[in-house]
Amino acid sequence: MTGAGPPAEFSLIARHFRPLAGPGSLDLLDDGALLAPPPGRELVFTADAMVAGVHFLPDDPADTVGAKLLRVNLSDLAAMGATPLAYLMTVSAPRDTGDAWFAAFASGLARDQARFGITLLGGDTTATPGPMTLSLTAIGHIAPGAALRRAGAMAGDEIWVTGTVGDGALGLLALQGNVADAGGYLAGRYRLPQPRLGLALHGVVSACMDVSDGLVQDVGHLCRAAGLGAVVEAALVPRSPAALAAGPAWLATCLTGGDDYELVMAVPPGQAGLLMAAASAGNCAVTRIGRFEAGSQVRVLDASGATVHLDRPGWSHF
Amino acid sequence: MTGAGPPAEFSLIARHFRPLAGPGSLDLLDDGALLAPPPGRELVFTADAMVAGVHFLPDDPADTVGAKLLRVNLSDLAAMGATPLAYLMTVSAPRDTGDAWFAAFASGLARDQARFGITLLGGDTTATPGPMTLSLTAIGHIAPGAALRRAGAMAGDEIWVTGTVGDGALGLLALQGNVADAGGYLAGRYRLPQPRLGLALHGVVSACMDVSDGLVQDVGHLCRAAGLGAVVEAALVPRSPAALAAGPAWLATCLTGGDDYELVMAVPPGQAGLLMAAASAGNCAVTRIGRFEAGSQVRVLDASGATVHLDRPGWSHF
Repeated sequence: MTGAGPPAEFSLIARHFRPLAGPGSLDLLDDGALLAPPPGRELVFTADAMVAGVHFLPDDPADTVGAKLLRVNLSDLAAMGATPLAYLMTVSAPRDTGDAWFAAFASGLARDQARFGITLLGGDTTATPGPMTLSLTAIGHIAPGAALRRAGAMAGDEIWVTGTVGDGALGLLALQGNVADAGGYLAGRYRLPQPRLGLALHGVVSACMDVSDGLVQDVGHLCRAAGLGAVVEAALVPRSPAALAAGPAWLATCLTGGDDYELVMAVPPGQAGLLMAAASAGNCAVTRIGRFEAGSQVRVLDASGATVHLDRPGWSHF
Repeated sequence: MTGAGPPAEFSLIARHFRPLAGPGSLDLLDDGALLAPPPGRELVFTADAMVAGVHFLPDDPADTVGAKLLRVNLSDLAAMGATPLAYLMTVSAPRDTGDAWFAAFASGLARDQARFGITLLGGDTTATPGPMTLSLTAIGHIAPGAALRRAGAMAGDEIWVTGTVGDGALGLLALQGNVADAGGYLAGRYRLPQPRLGLALHGVVSACMDVSDGLVQDVGHLCRAAGLGAVVEAALVPRSPAALAAGPAWLATCLTGGDDYELVMAVPPGQAGLLMAAASAGNCAVTRIGRFEAGSQVRVLDASGATVHLDRPGWSHF
């Protein structure tokens, strides 16, 4: 005979994750969840994993870990031009993870669910003998045919980015004690990226992706998808006051460091005005940083036109 | 200036995972994937994680690891009565994971994609300093209103299970050298569960779930969802010849051990004939093992009606 109470694993889920569950989740009580797209829309899917010590610091506040897990996926939805709808999540946690960690993790998710209009649909919680390992599958919706794509840039298109580039990579270095960050601005950008959702970019840009692995490498993705090369003018790349205060030695880090979660876009000549209007309506800065050209290389030039040497274009896990 | 070749991470994805990509995946080249449900259907979602050393053995063949990752999720779709459609996957791999491991892992997925009619939609590949950690979000489709649910059992409904129970838990013990398994049958059941897809159970069963954490515990889930208790007759629980050959000392392991991925169902009196017809059409054995009753306990009785003592009802990660 066994008691009526649920085992600890399910009690943990009920305490921390059931309050996050939304329409279609069946309160996380079934083997699966149910969802139909809003009428006339198609669904957009993306999945990212985050590992303690790789994608976040083991002592990062748990609420920012939850929010970052959601936001890096929302950034992918933003890069497709999609509207957030729901997400599934897996949590593989060390056995000694305290209840307070789960509570704070869930509170970060709850806050961002309200902010971004998305709810939990399902998932799985397991133990691991290794570091905290999280995955999230985000589901968005979009008008059929309206998805922004990586392919589509033409030679002569301008390269534009949202926001500022390099803060995330410098924020990690700041948290590791390698870069000054008096106000904590850079650390905040590392821990809480800002997904660029809600910009009306369909029909304005010819290609789009989010900058997650390093600006130069990600521009290279747009180039490969289009069979083109590109010139990035380093002096035009927007950096925050905190990033500039870190000093000129960190330029390469900003160009290749990853964790930006800004959008990089190909914009046909003559469309810049539309882009700036869309960005302004979305309360988001945009900056022109270069252009696509025939070829297959990403050339990074300084203000004098000389090549900026970079040891690597961006982040690769392997 | 940076070369035109993709970084190693993206080359790995192109080599091993792009061949698995199906409709809507955009060849894994974009930030997200696109999917609309088949006309008139709604979508069913489920996500499970698997960690080396927890859910599979670090030296399990990589092709069975890939197949098991897919199948444990397909089992959840089966428990809802859904038809497989697509999946997203995250792979967090130790840096020294060889290319051969990825190739074998992908080959196991490819074989099962063909078998179960499902294709890769998207995902993420990262490094980890910990054990291989995998997650998969499976998407199925179903007629609106036809999903099988955990809630719905009534007092007097019979409890039925598909296949045989306990092989998975004994298979793990066999691979650890604790149970004899001359033909490798039990190990095979641990490594390659058989999702019970395609059974026409809508309108036949009053509740359904898959047995993943231990039969007695999972019957407890059906009980809690219905506000009922249950009696499980241990002597009726179907065990394979290999499980019976392991000896009577392993009965409790079979009843509580987990990793079965069979379906456990509530079947109203008089519906057993329909259930057997559906199972027969799906080439699947089904066995009556007990009944739901008023109360809140799961009572496990032996052939003489005496209570079978169990240390725990099933598996809990925490």
